[in-house]
Amino acid sequence: MKAIEYESASEAVCAVYDDTKATRGVADVNNFWKHLANEPRMLAHVWASLKDIMGPGALDPLTKELIYLAVSATNNCAYCMASHGAAARAKGASDEMLNEVYAVVGLANMTNRLANAYGVPVDEAFRPEG
Amino acid sequence: MKAIEYESASEAVCAVYDDTKATRGVADVNNFWKHLANEPRMLAHVWASLKDIMGPGALDPLTKELIYLAVSATNNCAYCMASHGAAARAKGASDEMLNEVYAVVGLANMTNRLANAYGVPVDEAFRPEG
Amino acid sequence: MKAIEYESASEAVCAVYDDTKATRGVADVNNFWKHLANEPRMLAHVWASLKDIMGPGALDPLTKELIYLAVSATNNCAYCMASHGAAARAKGASDEMLNEVYAVVGLANMTNRLANAYGVPVDEAFRPEG
Amino acid sequence: MKAIEYESASEAVCAVYDDTKATRGVADVNNFWKHLANEPRMLAHVWASLKDIMGPGALDPLTKELIYLAVSATNNCAYCMASHGAAARAKGASDEMLNEVYAVVGLANMTNRLANAYGVPVDEAFRPEG
Amino acid sequence: MKAIEYESASEAVCAVYDDTKATRGVADVNNFWKHLANEPRMLAHVWASLKDIMGPGALDPLTKELIYLAVSATNNCAYCMASHGAAARAKGASDEMLNEVYAVVGLANMTNRLANAYGVPVDEAFRPEG
Amino acid sequence: MKAIEYESASEAVCAVYDDTKATRGVADVNNFWKHLANEPRMLAHVWASLKDIMGPGALDPLTKELIYLAVSATNNCAYCMASHGAAARAKGASDEMLNEVYAVVGLANMTNRLANAYGVPVDEAFRPEG
Repeated sequence: MKAIEYESASEAVCAVYDDTKATRGVADVNNFWKHLANEPRMLAHVWASLKDIMGPGALDPLTKELIYLAVSATNNCAYCMASHGAAARAKGASDEMLNEVYAVVGLANMTNRLANAYGVPVDEAFRPEG
Repeated sequence: MKAIEYESASEAVCAVYDDTKATRGVADVNNFWKHLANEPRMLAHVWASLKDIMGPGALDPLTKELIYLAVSATNNCAYCMASHGAAARAKGASDEMLNEVYAVVGLANMTNRLANAYGVPVDEAFRPEG
Repeated sequence: MKAIEYESASEAVCAVYDDTKATRGVADVNNFWKHLANEPRMLAHVWASLKDIMGPGALDPLTKELIYLAVSATNNCAYCMASHGAAARAKGASDEMLNEVYAVVGLANMTNRLANAYGVPVDEAFRPEG
Repeated sequence: MKAIEYESASEAVCAVYDDTKATRGVADVNNFWKHLANEPRMLAHVWASLKDIMGPGALDPLTKELIYLAVSATNNCAYCMASHGAAARAKGASDEMLNEVYAVVGLANMTNRLANAYGVPVDEAFRPEG
Repeated sequence: MKAIEYESASEAVCAVYDDTKATRGVADVNNFWKHLANEPRMLAHVWASLKDIMGPGALDPLTKELIYLAVSATNNCAYCMASHGAAARAKGASDEMLNEVYAVVGLANMTNRLANAYGVPVDEAFRPEG
Repeated sequence: MKAIEYESASEAVCAVYDDTKATRGVADVNNFWKHLANEPRMLAHVWASLKDIMGPGALDPLTKELIYLAVSATNNCAYCMASHGAAARAKGASDEMLNEVYAVVGLANMTNRLANAYGVPVDEAFRPEG
């Protein structure tokens, strides 16, 4: 599927593009949205979800970008690592912070398999009191 | 493989257990370490790595626990979600924060596949020193 | 490993190539089979399985191509997305259908992690009556 | 996190529950929504997305349930296999159809790795627009 | 889907069961085959493939069981870890060997993500016939 | 992140590079280590773990390389497949052996999903006697 530029986009797609640009203060939306616009319903839902969850909440925006980056590295999404890595830097992430995110990603992927391989039973202390 | 308790552990394993207990100020190590002790070399390496990386660094300890939790949820490691969820709470994570972590995990897993499915090319702006 | 062309293939490999070309009515097999031919036993097994399962059955061939595409997008296999996307189009899939497949893939990858993260217990109503 | 029942749910959560019940013609929402309600924003977004994409579109609803099931089997989400398997049956899927879905899932997971392992280059014929 | 026992199985399924029992010298097939028998075509293909590839070849049978176990641990298939762990033991694997397999699985899952996260370019020396 | 060459590396990084070169008898470390050097603590931990576990132990070094390759193919790490494929060849792996590894990887990825999809219960015979 090709990227859909603003000029050739439907009204519904342009509305999402406009909101994205206004929310982020950018001149153009990035390639992810231009491709997702091939499915205008998903474009609207994904944008609405990200705008909401990645905005103000219980966690600060930088922490959420780092979590997004960590999941993207686990799933090997090169585009997402590039875009959320750039977003993290724009929100103040240093090289040291990004390297530490990757280190945690590496360790978690290792211990996730070790815990599953050994079939480790959950400790009583970790069970919610509920 | 069975869990290896302190009483029946080798000297090398006990040394790791002792350091874990002293570092974390706990009376006993959790089930993960007791199972990993079946491979004493890995026990020592994994503990040394986690002690180092999850300790003081560029990111605060809570952020690193949340990243660990996010990767564990992506990989569906129930044990790791329980242990790092408990660790995150011990370091101050609220229900709202944990729910937001899961929300970001859900979104990232969705957009990771969408970006890969559409084969979205990386934007020039995301390229380092571009 | 290099692709193995018909001219330099063993008799066993040529037999699979011939059957593939006759079954699909094509002049040459695609690159996947030419690489898999490095392991002639797997070539024969994989071809026999696909010919059988992707042929007439309980589901129509297009539905099976879309399912194949959805799994390939989940696993990030660019080659498989290209080949099964092309196969789906050849069997009548429109752009709208492929975009909708990707949308479902995105949603499923999101809710799969959310269901696992929350450890949602299976509803009684979903359990087979068995 | 505990399931949130209607009686103890916020107004926003109840509104989603009401819409889910009305849309599906059921007496109660299933456990997935009751757990996701711990993050009311995600509850609303996920429900809105699923209602829209899994409803009328380019593909018939049963096909989309089968795709959802296939992705869930690939990701090993037991809850999602149970819920979307039940939904597929409710929409007319036979045992033969579900077994064939699993067969395709198995084959795709096999050939996805083989294509990646051999680094198979995409055939010219699979490339869009020539 | 329920397990299909010999008594209630079709002729085609019984033929596979008989061959499995004769090949392995066992009194009954294990649960995997009894469930896969719900899709008799896949039962036949999967059995034929495994009998062939896991039998005599370039690698000894134990090495192949250990590889099977390593992939199963990476994918978190508890059933497959149990069955191929047992098969490995039956072919001579010691506790030390199985623990070392898990250790390698852990390391590989860690470095796989680190290599992808850093986007490490392939060294010239690793390229075939370079 | 850029690769860090010996000339511009810190003392701690040079020490790892030196040990890697001495252990492996090579003139330079490969690109993986040069990128991982951006996080000197992980560089040291990952190197120490690999040197130890991939060295002499319960399994011969070639078997461990093949397991590493199998996990890397499952996770689709192109760099790791290249580096561990080369290492396996250096330790004596033939084309036939590598092709058989890929065949086992394909089969395991198929049956892992089938076992999970059917929710196959673990046979009594596979349970450890513990």
